[in-house]
Amino acid sequence: MSDRDGRLAQLRELLPGAEVDGLVVSAPGNIFYLSGFRGSSGALLVTDQQCMLFSDFRYRLQAKEQAPDFEFVEVPRRLLAAVGEAAAAAGVSRLGYNPSHLSCELRDQLSEGAGSVPLAPAGALVEEMRATKSEEEVGLISAAAALADRALAHMAKMLRAGATEREVALEGEFYMRREGAEAASFDVIVASGPRSALPHAETTDRELATGDSVVIDIGARFSGYCSDITRTFAVGSAPPEMGEVYKVVYQAQRAAAAGVQAGVICGDVDGIARKIIEDAGYSDSFGHGLGHGVGIDVHEAPRLGKGEKKELAPGNVVTVEPGIYLEGTGGVRLEDLLVVFQNGSETITGSPMPSELPVV
Amino acid sequence: MSDRDGRLAQLRELLPGAEVDGLVVSAPGNIFYLSGFRGSSGALLVTDQQCMLFSDFRYRLQAKEQAPDFEFVEVPRRLLAAVGEAAAAAGVSRLGYNPSHLSCELRDQLSEGAGSVPLAPAGALVEEMRATKSEEEVGLISAAAALADRALAHMAKMLRAGATEREVALEGEFYMRREGAEAASFDVIVASGPRSALPHAETTDRELATGDSVVIDIGARFSGYCSDITRTFAVGSAPPEMGEVYKVVYQAQRAAAAGVQAGVICGDVDGIARKIIEDAGYSDSFGHGLGHGVGIDVHEAPRLGKGEKKELAPGNVVTVEPGIYLEGTGGVRLEDLLVVFQNGSETITGSPMPSELPVV
Repeated sequence: MSDRDGRLAQLRELLPGAEVDGLVVSAPGNIFYLSGFRGSSGALLVTDQQCMLFSDFRYRLQAKEQAPDFEFVEVPRRLLAAVGEAAAAAGVSRLGYNPSHLSCELRDQLSEGAGSVPLAPAGALVEEMRATKSEEEVGLISAAAALADRALAHMAKMLRAGATEREVALEGEFYMRREGAEAASFDVIVASGPRSALPHAETTDRELATGDSVVIDIGARFSGYCSDITRTFAVGSAPPEMGEVYKVVYQAQRAAAAGVQAGVICGDVDGIARKIIEDAGYSDSFGHGLGHGVGIDVHEAPRLGKGEKKELAPGNVVTVEPGIYLEGTGGVRLEDLLVVFQNGSETITGSPMPSELPVV
Repeated sequence: MSDRDGRLAQLRELLPGAEVDGLVVSAPGNIFYLSGFRGSSGALLVTDQQCMLFSDFRYRLQAKEQAPDFEFVEVPRRLLAAVGEAAAAAGVSRLGYNPSHLSCELRDQLSEGAGSVPLAPAGALVEEMRATKSEEEVGLISAAAALADRALAHMAKMLRAGATEREVALEGEFYMRREGAEAASFDVIVASGPRSALPHAETTDRELATGDSVVIDIGARFSGYCSDITRTFAVGSAPPEMGEVYKVVYQAQRAAAAGVQAGVICGDVDGIARKIIEDAGYSDSFGHGLGHGVGIDVHEAPRLGKGEKKELAPGNVVTVEPGIYLEGTGGVRLEDLLVVFQNGSETITGSPMPSELPVV
């Protein structure tokens, strides 16, 4: 993939600013982004001159197939010690790593291998690169979103009294996978009735009942990239309170989505939705952030939450997903996925979002 | 679950030996084991008097449902700092953590919260407890194994020239999930022809061809517990070399499985299989360890690999999975799951393992 050459060059340009001349890359998503390697165990070492992929015997052939531009180093055990030794052998004078992706134990291992080469926390260099998507990446995310859109339409038809949450969730996931998704990008959520008040509900064998609100949160992974979408429905009839709650969430979602464009502070986008929800009297019922970046990981930079100071940038792909959750009664969440442009945004998810709680 | 009370008491007895009077538990599998909580984000603090579960708004209701014995503490951000503060407030004098489950960043956060309370790496206390399964746990693993057995039989019927790896893998997973598995315990592997020489192959759209060897590696997760099994087949006809390779792997698997009992050194069980494979002239073709523990995680303690010094103990549940991989030609792996007893073992997986390469 041509993108990958550019990424390595871009990362090398960032090293001096982080005051390192070598970088250990240990998070699987970052390894895939830079090298193409998708094994479950591995690490990269990037210096000005070298790029090496360390993994074990199990991935010997796969590494050569997926990451042909990287020198493959097979390591039987203590992978990070081998990375440290290689950095020392390559003459690295200060070896960077991301402290949020390296366990204390692995940092110690790296340090032992590196010997006299000092280690330096180098922030989230690769994560920051990943926050800006290329056109090709937006294309893959859009393909993943299209799969989830179709699955969602398929699932909406299954919503009737007596169907179980689990049946609906399974059908949705199977649909996406048959159509080419590598996986669901997270466990599909079908949360019905009082359970819809759990923002990250586990799907159960609960049978849907007339008058339930049902939150469906689903995403596909396609060619290594994720999507994420949420819609809320009512089964048979809409309970009056949930109808009102839906309208508030809808307004919050639309207003916040309209506020997405490059240069806007992430926390301010959250604030648009939060104010609408608070003004409607639900201050205590929207406890999570408005949204998050989506790409190789389903949760990545940037975060759209209260107090987040970063500015949105062109090429960011973010969810906008306000919700209101009433313990014991039910909840509503509405979520789209947007790509950020200089003067606005485009919605990647394609499912209709009615302005009133849809009764199915 | 009654097991859980005993676990907490057992853990508390281990604290003095680790020279701590409070323990932070941060790995999801350990959190589930001790508390029952299955959210994606959380941490526990266990002291002699207290047991607290820290998570965020999204899991407020779920935490109370799944972990009723733990005091729930809702934390908007910087979860580990809150854990540290609570430990200090509880009068902990030395706060333990597992350095392989805490990132450098989170340890720093914990340390900031804990203030003057010193942190101490406390090893893998909970992992070591988890290595010994109760009867109830063996029952859940057996139920997961039975699901995978049936899926494997179903998949074996699909193996014919023209079927794709992906079709077969999807059908196997869907079968398990329809029958009650929460998930596949890892991405189902269907590796055919030359791709069967990749121990951790990604499943592709490759069409099976007559004469292919096909490695199927599959597991289910049921009620939070995993299973793991591998079988190898030939499509239409057995290529002579793979037939020979199969016999060697079969002998290695049977001999090593027969060597499993309490008191045996883990590395020695690996050695039984490795010697048979080396004596047959395939020294360079069995690059991974013989097996691993299986439970809440599909890879957990104990490890059965070269040089592992630990003894097997009653209640361990381990895989025995030798393989031979010939680059460009193909591979064979055979894997069963065994529970360790004082005087031997019992095989949990129930699929037949023919002594000659089965042609389907």
